Amino acid sequence: MIYLTRKEQFSASHCLLNPKFSQEKNFEIFGKCANPNGHGHNYEIEITLIGEVNTETGMIMDLKKLSELIEKEILEKVDHKHLNMDVNFLKGIIPTAENLAKVFFEILEPKIPFGKLYSIKLSESNNNYVEYKK
Amino acid sequence: MIYLTRKEQFSASHCLLNPKFSQEKNFEIFGKCANPNGHGHNYEIEITLIGEVNTETGMIMDLKKLSELIEKEILEKVDHKHLNMDVNFLKGIIPTAENLAKVFFEILEPKIPFGKLYSIKLSESNNNYVEYKK
Amino acid sequence: MIYLTRKEQFSASHCLLNPKFSQEKNFEIFGKCANPNGHGHNYEIEITLIGEVNTETGMIMDLKKLSELIEKEILEKVDHKHLNMDVNFLKGIIPTAENLAKVFFEILEPKIPFGKLYSIKLSESNNNYVEYKK
Amino acid sequence: MIYLTRKEQFSASHCLLNPKFSQEKNFEIFGKCANPNGHGHNYEIEITLIGEVNTETGMIMDLKKLSELIEKEILEKVDHKHLNMDVNFLKGIIPTAENLAKVFFEILEPKIPFGKLYSIKLSESNNNYVEYKK
Amino acid sequence: MIYLTRKEQFSASHCLLNPKFSQEKNFEIFGKCANPNGHGHNYEIEITLIGEVNTETGMIMDLKKLSELIEKEILEKVDHKHLNMDVNFLKGIIPTAENLAKVFFEILEPKIPFGKLYSIKLSESNNNYVEYKK
Amino acid sequence: MIYLTRKEQFSASHCLLNPKFSQEKNFEIFGKCANPNGHGHNYEIEITLIGEVNTETGMIMDLKKLSELIEKEILEKVDHKHLNMDVNFLKGIIPTAENLAKVFFEILEPKIPFGKLYSIKLSESNNNYVEYKK
Repeated sequence: MIYLTRKEQFSASHCLLNPKFSQEKNFEIFGKCANPNGHGHNYEIEITLIGEVNTETGMIMDLKKLSELIEKEILEKVDHKHLNMDVNFLKGIIPTAENLAKVFFEILEPKIPFGKLYSIKLSESNNNYVEYKK
Repeated sequence: MIYLTRKEQFSASHCLLNPKFSQEKNFEIFGKCANPNGHGHNYEIEITLIGEVNTETGMIMDLKKLSELIEKEILEKVDHKHLNMDVNFLKGIIPTAENLAKVFFEILEPKIPFGKLYSIKLSESNNNYVEYKK
Repeated sequence: MIYLTRKEQFSASHCLLNPKFSQEKNFEIFGKCANPNGHGHNYEIEITLIGEVNTETGMIMDLKKLSELIEKEILEKVDHKHLNMDVNFLKGIIPTAENLAKVFFEILEPKIPFGKLYSIKLSESNNNYVEYKK
Repeated sequence: MIYLTRKEQFSASHCLLNPKFSQEKNFEIFGKCANPNGHGHNYEIEITLIGEVNTETGMIMDLKKLSELIEKEILEKVDHKHLNMDVNFLKGIIPTAENLAKVFFEILEPKIPFGKLYSIKLSESNNNYVEYKK
Repeated sequence: MIYLTRKEQFSASHCLLNPKFSQEKNFEIFGKCANPNGHGHNYEIEITLIGEVNTETGMIMDLKKLSELIEKEILEKVDHKHLNMDVNFLKGIIPTAENLAKVFFEILEPKIPFGKLYSIKLSESNNNYVEYKK
Repeated sequence: MIYLTRKEQFSASHCLLNPKFSQEKNFEIFGKCANPNGHGHNYEIEITLIGEVNTETGMIMDLKKLSELIEKEILEKVDHKHLNMDVNFLKGIIPTAENLAKVFFEILEPKIPFGKLYSIKLSESNNNYVEYKK
């Protein structure tokens, strides 16, 4: 089996808080990430497909088309945005890395034209990342 | 001459707009960085001192003390903050990388106990950085 | 399933030799790593948990608490240490990356309060790393 | 189980085109990668073994020997070469990352003396990589 | 003074040989880089401007416009090309990193609309780079 | 002017202490770096020459020869060594990054056959480095 991965970046702000909790409890749970004015990250996202190599092209899928798909479905909606305020598909969702990876997976999975979506890895900083597989 | 550099990181959000301009003109000048809800970055900052090596210690300055100084004077005030809203020393300043590097330099310069501050390099993303020298 | 990874660093020295072998045989097997005065590395360690996302917090586990746990159980004991001489839990163990990853896994596994420990990846240099999974 | 990975680099040129297609169709499928004069990359390759730790050495396999094996079987033949023109084992193969990873796997698999070959990861640029597992 | 740097990448092939020399002498001077079929690299280029900060925008120059300028003047002409064969402004020039940096500087210098071009840094691989200043 | 830089790595152990001081005072000054059993790093060294481009070769100096020179004069003597115990040219010197950069500069400077040595940058970890220029 061959896995094909494309990396992309976006820059966004967010704050981590559960609106059902008091701000006090939010600081207790989320620490400085609960600052209601928000903070931000350069996110790095890795989209991995699994598939068979097309014998006529030697590729699972054209990387340029994969990149355009990610741009249209994800990056256009989150890059240079506030994830709690500006993104329709994140309404009502606490924008942790875990939740973002899952939502991005659900959006991309039905759109992949060759092979199938295997995993989404999302890194918020040099020191931590999450990976979602179905 | 020896140059000693310490790298630190912080995560913050900002938006780029000049309050004297219309939002339309701000989008024209700053593009998607003018989104009024803000966006964010993992900033990387490099603080470089120039100095003489102390012959008894073989060091210009203890890196642990330099790191604590940067933490106290800069990082505590900007990490996990909204640069336009949460930071006293940035009031009235458009928080571009250029302006941040200059302000950070002015704050740190009088506090350096050994050698002197030579430059501050500030990176907003993998693809761009600024460097301020006096 | 969601995987959550935290990266940490430590700096340590070690030498690779089996006390049952002659120094000659140790040089034959371990090459310059058998230098009895030791040499050192900046180790990078990646701790990966697998778990379910808590719906109230959007997280598997608070990264700050995970980082504190790694600090207390592993880093405090190996950072700026000689792995053959200074570390109780490595007595009698040749401190190869393979053995370190396994020992770190066994120490951390019973302490993980949310989800469970999935893998430990340990890198000795830019060009090699090991990964241990149970 | 322990996984042991060695990273190596090589620099090569290639062009992506299927000789059965017209140059027009090749540009349609492969974009600027079909430039018949070729273009090039710094390839990064990660070779991962899976195995048991030898209790006398604490290692799956000596990394120096693994590196020499990769050098002899792969790097000597592709480094500073044109992959479409200079490499016997790539004759008749479109040198996409997918195909390279598969061919490298088949060459190395029977030569691994300890443990067994688990995967080959091949990166053409900062933004994409493939991984082949059998 | 403020220095502003933009990083870009391109992938190209080249071969290093002086047409006045025999192929034997070229191999003696340029080693495996003289392979007449060529080899390739992912080049990383850093363009640094020096300038004054515009007080109305907080910027020396809009990074998006700088990036578009580099794209139009340099990247469009060298990305996915063979530097010895496909690039008009490199005709008759041995495409070493040293020569590329100098030529790129001469092309860009008169086009910089704000501040002035300070240096061009060009990296051929992880282990070497050149920097040209006028 | 053109600057040419070569990066190399070595792995070594050291401890920071001044033999004229008590161990207590050494811990006070050097913190955990004073552990008498030593600790270690993967050092990254950047050697920069400044020079004129040879018009027949397009190079300041052949990088392969520069690399061999660094290997012979520096790396062979410090790689996989204990810097306080195993290295003749460091006897009586506290092996801080500052002192290492200076000593390496003095060793290499008279051996550079083309151009001249401009600077040595030495990094002990991801977060700090020194640079020595004469």
